[in-house]
Amino acid sequence: MVRAAIAGVGMVPFAKMREKSLADIGWPAVKAAIADAGIEPKALQACYCGTSLGGMMAGQRILGRMGLTGIPVTNIENACSSSSSALAQAVLAVRAGKYEAVLVVGAEKLTKFGGGTLPLEKEDWEVSQGLVMPALYAMRAKRYMHEYGLTELQLAKVSVKNRKNGALNPDAQYRQAVTVEDVLGSRMIAEPFTLLQCCPTGDGAAALVVTSEKLARKLRSDPVFVAASELTSGRFTAGFRDMTTPEITVRGAAEAYEEAGLGPEDIDVAEVHDAFSIAELIYYDAFGFSKKGEAGALIDSGATEIGGRVAVNPSGGLISKGHPIGATGAAQVVEITRQLRGECGPRQVPGAKVGLAHATGGGISGFDHGACAIHILTR
Amino acid sequence: MVRAAIAGVGMVPFAKMREKSLADIGWPAVKAAIADAGIEPKALQACYCGTSLGGMMAGQRILGRMGLTGIPVTNIENACSSSSSALAQAVLAVRAGKYEAVLVVGAEKLTKFGGGTLPLEKEDWEVSQGLVMPALYAMRAKRYMHEYGLTELQLAKVSVKNRKNGALNPDAQYRQAVTVEDVLGSRMIAEPFTLLQCCPTGDGAAALVVTSEKLARKLRSDPVFVAASELTSGRFTAGFRDMTTPEITVRGAAEAYEEAGLGPEDIDVAEVHDAFSIAELIYYDAFGFSKKGEAGALIDSGATEIGGRVAVNPSGGLISKGHPIGATGAAQVVEITRQLRGECGPRQVPGAKVGLAHATGGGISGFDHGACAIHILTR
Repeated sequence: MVRAAIAGVGMVPFAKMREKSLADIGWPAVKAAIADAGIEPKALQACYCGTSLGGMMAGQRILGRMGLTGIPVTNIENACSSSSSALAQAVLAVRAGKYEAVLVVGAEKLTKFGGGTLPLEKEDWEVSQGLVMPALYAMRAKRYMHEYGLTELQLAKVSVKNRKNGALNPDAQYRQAVTVEDVLGSRMIAEPFTLLQCCPTGDGAAALVVTSEKLARKLRSDPVFVAASELTSGRFTAGFRDMTTPEITVRGAAEAYEEAGLGPEDIDVAEVHDAFSIAELIYYDAFGFSKKGEAGALIDSGATEIGGRVAVNPSGGLISKGHPIGATGAAQVVEITRQLRGECGPRQVPGAKVGLAHATGGGISGFDHGACAIHILTR
Repeated sequence: MVRAAIAGVGMVPFAKMREKSLADIGWPAVKAAIADAGIEPKALQACYCGTSLGGMMAGQRILGRMGLTGIPVTNIENACSSSSSALAQAVLAVRAGKYEAVLVVGAEKLTKFGGGTLPLEKEDWEVSQGLVMPALYAMRAKRYMHEYGLTELQLAKVSVKNRKNGALNPDAQYRQAVTVEDVLGSRMIAEPFTLLQCCPTGDGAAALVVTSEKLARKLRSDPVFVAASELTSGRFTAGFRDMTTPEITVRGAAEAYEEAGLGPEDIDVAEVHDAFSIAELIYYDAFGFSKKGEAGALIDSGATEIGGRVAVNPSGGLISKGHPIGATGAAQVVEITRQLRGECGPRQVPGAKVGLAHATGGGISGFDHGACAIHILTR
């Protein structure tokens, strides 16, 4: 099997870009990734484009802006893990020897398609009963607090950490550090979540050039390698009255660790799917950064800050960097790649050698219809 | 490289199913394909779901109805070639040895999402100027008539042939044969197309079980093999004032023939993308069934009827079987598989050994942003 590498990365700063089209937003990210890889555009043999609400032929429209046409372009929808699912396909194709160089792009424009315009099917009974994402995660938070004594202060610390990190990231949608008082004092959205504990609505794009190890070593001296690429489907809860164990991520994490031959103790830096403050904490447990129920103690310890044992969401995460759905997975890999290359300046995780990216989505039409993509990267 | 096979196929009759959800429509096709393959559902290791307008997590919603969860599910959007692009990914994965058995499902519900509700981006200048699909194809038809002397009668014969075939297909949306007079006398849509020369709006689903040759031979005595699987992007026209040469399909056809080591003379049966009457004729030329400009003579000769040299659209094609966008590519492969197995009863193509399926899409936001998937199957 060919070893797959990330030879180039690029993204546009996440922001609300109401006047731009999806292609306007997407192509500069592609251009940046191609430039970063130092690859000839015509050497790209295929493209996988992740978008959830970008409409028909999103990848073709983005590449069309750059005159990149002819190659196979496959658009992939997997909710919040759309572009990490696209990466999984690219990795599969490179490992198989089908292509030597593949472009992955994730793009989304939520300022246009978001805001309650999602089509609801008749089986969307959860949403019709009020179980929108903030409500679903709020119940998970309440349950975690009830079961394990998690406090509102510990929840708020997730936002404080991620906004602090995001303030150091020029690509982040929100670049202002906040205090625990700011977080707890912001508007209530769904108890216990205040506004600053929820990821924002925004637009953005991120792109990756995925190549064989051989080509990557020709292109640059510091490629990053894909040690694990796992996509799973499943449930966000483990079963009746256990809404604090995301079955889909727990299983995906075990598969990813096995594939990489690594464990939680090996991860130096991780970008995990912190759509809401509780989510990051639940994923501490799911990835084995903490024992089940001890995520509150882990955030208290500072171990997940930059400089701690395992830096989580140094980019600012979804809460601070933003969450344009289809762009998120690729943007996480942009950050992990830059961290492993040591390019992150003031938010650099010292000595980072192994990184993990985790994007998980679904729930609009059933919280048991989820997708989860996990990648482990090494330098 | 592992040889990929189609071990099972299934579909639901295409129809307007306003009261059903996408999952309601999709799961019976999956069930039928699994039963046809005689495979244990738990032996399926991954799923690729093609849908263009089906919304988030379409595949997960469909499989969720059957309790099929846990496996990687990847939703693929490539307009009219969504589920044939999904098949291309499944074939890639099986050939690479990543999976032994993969489910492909295509599903669409146009009665809900069609009807002018497609989101238009600001770069959709073609559509905003009136260049909707019927108008685009109408201009290609007019140009072909001008350049090569194609007649309205020859155009009408495509619909007569395909409706005759569809009348013999229990899965077709329209099962009434029509005469040339019926076709030419039906309501004008976009000159020269009358209503019966345009594919209808409808809903539907089709599914395929794609496996390694080894597993397919264990499951059944008559598997069908994938000799070529090509996905391309590109233009529907060859350049300035040449709108009768679909560059994307011409190039894809050459790639597919090369991959299979076969030529147009080897194809016994083909399902081609007859969204409008002219489309089938243009594709006769593109696939080399006729010399450039001679498609009218080919339809006159009867060579593309069942029993002719190369039977085209024995299922009834998009015009008669229907065209629920994301389901179309998989449904074409259902038909070719059944033809190669000799299961088609009154519409059986005698002695069919090599079949071709062709789905091409895009154009909603630029006719130069197309996708085209071509598969050649052999028994």
